[in-house]
Amino acid sequence: MDTFVLILELIGTVAFAVSGAVVAIRKRMDVFGVAILALTTAVGGGMIRDVLLGVTPPATFRDPVYALTAILVSLIVFIKPVRHYLTGTHKAYQQTMLAMDSLGLGVFTAVGVSLAYVSQPETGMFLPVFTGVLSGVGGGVLRDVMAGDTPYIFIKHIYACASLAGALVCVLLRGVIGQAYAMIGGAALIVIIRILSATYRWNLPRAD
Amino acid sequence: MDTFVLILELIGTVAFAVSGAVVAIRKRMDVFGVAILALTTAVGGGMIRDVLLGVTPPATFRDPVYALTAILVSLIVFIKPVRHYLTGTHKAYQQTMLAMDSLGLGVFTAVGVSLAYVSQPETGMFLPVFTGVLSGVGGGVLRDVMAGDTPYIFIKHIYACASLAGALVCVLLRGVIGQAYAMIGGAALIVIIRILSATYRWNLPRAD
Amino acid sequence: MDTFVLILELIGTVAFAVSGAVVAIRKRMDVFGVAILALTTAVGGGMIRDVLLGVTPPATFRDPVYALTAILVSLIVFIKPVRHYLTGTHKAYQQTMLAMDSLGLGVFTAVGVSLAYVSQPETGMFLPVFTGVLSGVGGGVLRDVMAGDTPYIFIKHIYACASLAGALVCVLLRGVIGQAYAMIGGAALIVIIRILSATYRWNLPRAD
Repeated sequence: MDTFVLILELIGTVAFAVSGAVVAIRKRMDVFGVAILALTTAVGGGMIRDVLLGVTPPATFRDPVYALTAILVSLIVFIKPVRHYLTGTHKAYQQTMLAMDSLGLGVFTAVGVSLAYVSQPETGMFLPVFTGVLSGVGGGVLRDVMAGDTPYIFIKHIYACASLAGALVCVLLRGVIGQAYAMIGGAALIVIIRILSATYRWNLPRAD
Repeated sequence: MDTFVLILELIGTVAFAVSGAVVAIRKRMDVFGVAILALTTAVGGGMIRDVLLGVTPPATFRDPVYALTAILVSLIVFIKPVRHYLTGTHKAYQQTMLAMDSLGLGVFTAVGVSLAYVSQPETGMFLPVFTGVLSGVGGGVLRDVMAGDTPYIFIKHIYACASLAGALVCVLLRGVIGQAYAMIGGAALIVIIRILSATYRWNLPRAD
Repeated sequence: MDTFVLILELIGTVAFAVSGAVVAIRKRMDVFGVAILALTTAVGGGMIRDVLLGVTPPATFRDPVYALTAILVSLIVFIKPVRHYLTGTHKAYQQTMLAMDSLGLGVFTAVGVSLAYVSQPETGMFLPVFTGVLSGVGGGVLRDVMAGDTPYIFIKHIYACASLAGALVCVLLRGVIGQAYAMIGGAALIVIIRILSATYRWNLPRAD
């Protein structure tokens, strides 16, 4: 199970690192700024999660694999042909962000739910769901606040709503189909909701 | 005492949730953005307080009542007649913000002082005062930073100063008139200072 | 050793408090806003460090000396002749910021490395280095985000890179020349790299 969670966390780390790197590239930061924003996005949500669960120092501090992965990914994204492929046009940029941000959101939500049960085995439903959502959205919020943008969570259709739905799936299905399948199902649901909502421009009511 | 603190926290949660919701409505966010900003404002200060005091997971994670109250309040504020009443004119918006933000600031400062004594019974005066001020201002700072505004704490007359005065009252009077009355006195003082300073436009010296 | 670390922390507190105060003065905040931004910058990095290491309540909460020093410094900086000297011209402002921000970055990085070893004696190299960098850059990031600016860490040449180099020096030399000299060497290296990079406008590659 630990290996499975580690693999998921690394997938989320890569995805969020790419999202942070491409935001920094679009803002014309230098290579170090790109690495810093990738790192912040990739490890920020997990750090917030661990501090809230009382797991200190956070996993990111105990094992260099997360930080090194994020920095390595940011350097690869910065290579000229790669960054042109990922951010060369507005459409390419939008698609990279949608894919990578959604994948990170899905995976970190599922991992957050799972680690909440590890830390608080006797808990009810609320703590894992809330921890999962905060873990999922945390990295992206840090990325956007540090880059001076309005956080995605406020402007992207159904963003936190997708994370909440996925976290509920993780919690409700873990007793039925086992934790691993529940995590995959929850993460997949988040990615699917995000992509559908972006494709069909689902909108929620807005104040007039 | 626990029930009394819980009631105060719920009053603060409602007040800060309204303040977050009306900021989001003025920024024309959709209903989910409104709920998220209300939630962040309402539970943010308490989360920061609990993490700093080493109380993990924070109370907001252990008991859903805070988060659910904040979300419910945000949905009520979003109802058309309610939001028109609270934010329809610039003057209405200003008055809603002044009342709700001041009430939240007052209550969370008093609760922060009180919980610092619970967590660190042997402490001197400084820790409860500092914890109280950070608990009081934390939610509003998160709200403003996430909404992309200059934090109130920098621009509103006497903001942190009011919180500091109230926290001192809570600490100094608890041995004299008991903790509950000291908390009510401290919170009331904060609200009064804020409203007087806004009404009479008290100003502090500014760099020229 | 404790006294030595305390002296370094106070130097860093004064330096970061000045940097926060002059940013607030340039933004024409009132005297209370100046004190708040100075305090945030001066104690923010240490608070983040202590929370991540599981040291709660953070040192800033247990001993008022840090907060009082920061506030006192901000009031001195606010005195008319002092603030004119430090921020009167764009060049004076730039030089004040470079000197004070670099000094704070250097000292807090070295202190962060050292306190990571205190908290986690059995640790490898990665945890102290990462803790040192986060402690060093944390105060400045909070300052810039709260002031609504793009964080220095993204735009100043070699900023986090300098902190990383200094943290590595602290870790690698502590077994060779002792902890105190390693800390001084690491902090000095950071200040030197920052000043050289600003003077000669070292640039890293930027996305085109």
